[in-house]
Amino acid sequence: MIQPFDFYNPTHIVFGPERLNELDSLIPQEARVLILFGGESARRFGTIDKVREGLGKRTVLEFAGVEANPTYETLMKAVAVVKDEKIDFLLAVGGGSVIDGTKFVAAAAEFDGDPIDMFGGGIGKQLPIHSALPFGSVLTLPATASEMNAGSVITFVEKGAKLGFGSAHTFPKFSFLDPTLTYTLPKRQLANGIVDAFVHIFEQYMTYDAGALVTDRFSEGLLQTLIEIGPRVVNDSEPDYNDRANFMWAATNALNGVLRPGVPQDWATHMIGHEITNLFHIDHARTLAAILPAMLTVRKTQKQSKLLQYGERVWGITTGTDDERITAAIDKTAAFLESLEVPTSLSAYDLTAKDVDALVANLIAHDQVKLSEHGDLTPEISREILLASL
Amino acid sequence: MIQPFDFYNPTHIVFGPERLNELDSLIPQEARVLILFGGESARRFGTIDKVREGLGKRTVLEFAGVEANPTYETLMKAVAVVKDEKIDFLLAVGGGSVIDGTKFVAAAAEFDGDPIDMFGGGIGKQLPIHSALPFGSVLTLPATASEMNAGSVITFVEKGAKLGFGSAHTFPKFSFLDPTLTYTLPKRQLANGIVDAFVHIFEQYMTYDAGALVTDRFSEGLLQTLIEIGPRVVNDSEPDYNDRANFMWAATNALNGVLRPGVPQDWATHMIGHEITNLFHIDHARTLAAILPAMLTVRKTQKQSKLLQYGERVWGITTGTDDERITAAIDKTAAFLESLEVPTSLSAYDLTAKDVDALVANLIAHDQVKLSEHGDLTPEISREILLASL
Repeated sequence: MIQPFDFYNPTHIVFGPERLNELDSLIPQEARVLILFGGESARRFGTIDKVREGLGKRTVLEFAGVEANPTYETLMKAVAVVKDEKIDFLLAVGGGSVIDGTKFVAAAAEFDGDPIDMFGGGIGKQLPIHSALPFGSVLTLPATASEMNAGSVITFVEKGAKLGFGSAHTFPKFSFLDPTLTYTLPKRQLANGIVDAFVHIFEQYMTYDAGALVTDRFSEGLLQTLIEIGPRVVNDSEPDYNDRANFMWAATNALNGVLRPGVPQDWATHMIGHEITNLFHIDHARTLAAILPAMLTVRKTQKQSKLLQYGERVWGITTGTDDERITAAIDKTAAFLESLEVPTSLSAYDLTAKDVDALVANLIAHDQVKLSEHGDLTPEISREILLASL
Repeated sequence: MIQPFDFYNPTHIVFGPERLNELDSLIPQEARVLILFGGESARRFGTIDKVREGLGKRTVLEFAGVEANPTYETLMKAVAVVKDEKIDFLLAVGGGSVIDGTKFVAAAAEFDGDPIDMFGGGIGKQLPIHSALPFGSVLTLPATASEMNAGSVITFVEKGAKLGFGSAHTFPKFSFLDPTLTYTLPKRQLANGIVDAFVHIFEQYMTYDAGALVTDRFSEGLLQTLIEIGPRVVNDSEPDYNDRANFMWAATNALNGVLRPGVPQDWATHMIGHEITNLFHIDHARTLAAILPAMLTVRKTQKQSKLLQYGERVWGITTGTDDERITAAIDKTAAFLESLEVPTSLSAYDLTAKDVDALVANLIAHDQVKLSEHGDLTPEISREILLASL
């Protein structure tokens, strides 16, 4: 049966080239703004300048150095700046890491108590978040959809953990999506973004059949879009505006809530992937691609009806036994990921069975022991998936 | 090229059976609430009672009698009640007419000047709307998506006009979507709702190819959903929860903004349909079905690429000349509408060529002279479409 659901997403999307002058109408005139960004590329390619121009005469400070897989340790320094400088509006300029980090800063700045207690996972008390500073984003790297959702994943260096939080208060007020800002991205980041979006769709779609026809069709449409444009985006010598725009909008929709109504969710690939990034510092998206085919193969009984539906609707696989069709669908999926020059095994990163032991130990330490849509994916099954990914 | 766009939709959807007790957490405790509804069915089937129970001890007044095609004349009486009784929250219980009417009341109650100036179309000055009372909805009839958008269409009896307005302030704060509330709907209203949603998708999808892959896939997915469930919803002797839930969610998505990003829009079928309803009091949805096949046939050159795409992706039409494939797609569309027992010609309502003259005269009087995605649909082409619909 279609599950009851709530849908709520108040983020205002401003999509199209060269619209940063509209920042002026979206932020209070008297705001004291902190711009958060990562490395120097945002400055080098002129985005920070355009943002500052759009902000006009407001008081504007900058906080550079938010890492990929943003850390609690770094972000607490931004929280201190916010408090010291009486900042009342945050503006993230970057990809999912910068926006996730900005969400943390927005909530931590107003959190009553130690911000570590915004998290669970054995490191904090996971207390409710009652407010957050308002913030917006200027997206430079399509991938995570953080620009249009309320979730955030933060890395705790000292504790060796990667944990998430979310709240109705941590939606961006607005996000600027300018496809031309992707023109300067290296191929590896483009590929990672496509894989990240692709697996976000899978986590919400590839479960069991709940009869939610609209949500299934939306998921399939986004998968078809990424399959159509992905190889072109990664391999074209000249960027194509429509391809980049379709990539950007598909990645946002992959995790802005439109794929959730009425369906169960999985997220086991992400939970296992987080541990791989933690221990071996492999790019988030690459950890997902490395285990997805093995995940689908090990879990093909639980996911049978959706694997068959996916094969038929997305890849046009209509002949053969059920098992043959499922194998063909998984093979097509792996081939698509490989076409983006992203490996679909952990052996590509020289991991071995011994590393699998360490990963499984961390899953247990972080309480990731009942994963997947049925809550039946135990550490032993995680081990089986990881071994099959080697 | 994919067009620049803004996406903003802050309505909170509460979807599932028997959730009206959650009203309590969504409306301020001290609110003075006016419930607006249509006929007595909302009371007879117990919905008003459940709503009042959900509202607890708040002060609650009722305004019954909002018509299908809600009128300015009736709604101004509700505006008077709001002012006299110091109402500060409105709650629509009904379908698109009640929700559209409630949007008008919400905006008119706070409008600085004569509310007729919220409209253009030759009857008002179309001044901007700067605020509106907060309001929510309890949807009883899926069709218009008014429960999750900011638009409203109002009928002016004295002036013989049907005109729309919208504003960022007239989104419902929340809407309750309970598929079981559709179980008591008569077959005719179910069929009308499916047709209304179907044509909403067409108005946004069936234009020219803008390269917006995500939006196209979403539109096609919704069309496929309505085609799959439509005949079952209309003809089943026992209502099926999933069918009703899919119908309800498809109708909401048909006009909540997710089909707009990057694409042009048509709306000519609606503009002509409004005049038919005005003059001949034919149900809104039925006017759309009566002219849609003729519209597609007369405009098949302008819409060629999308008609071919629609035929292939939605109906699986892949053989024949372009013209044969387009004709087949239009025939399939008409057959689908007829399968809902909704006529696809105006002669079913005994209209004649003389009536077409009156309709064209009204289109001109209401300034509907440059319709469709190219603005090239003149009154003469409207006449051609109407004559072909006879």
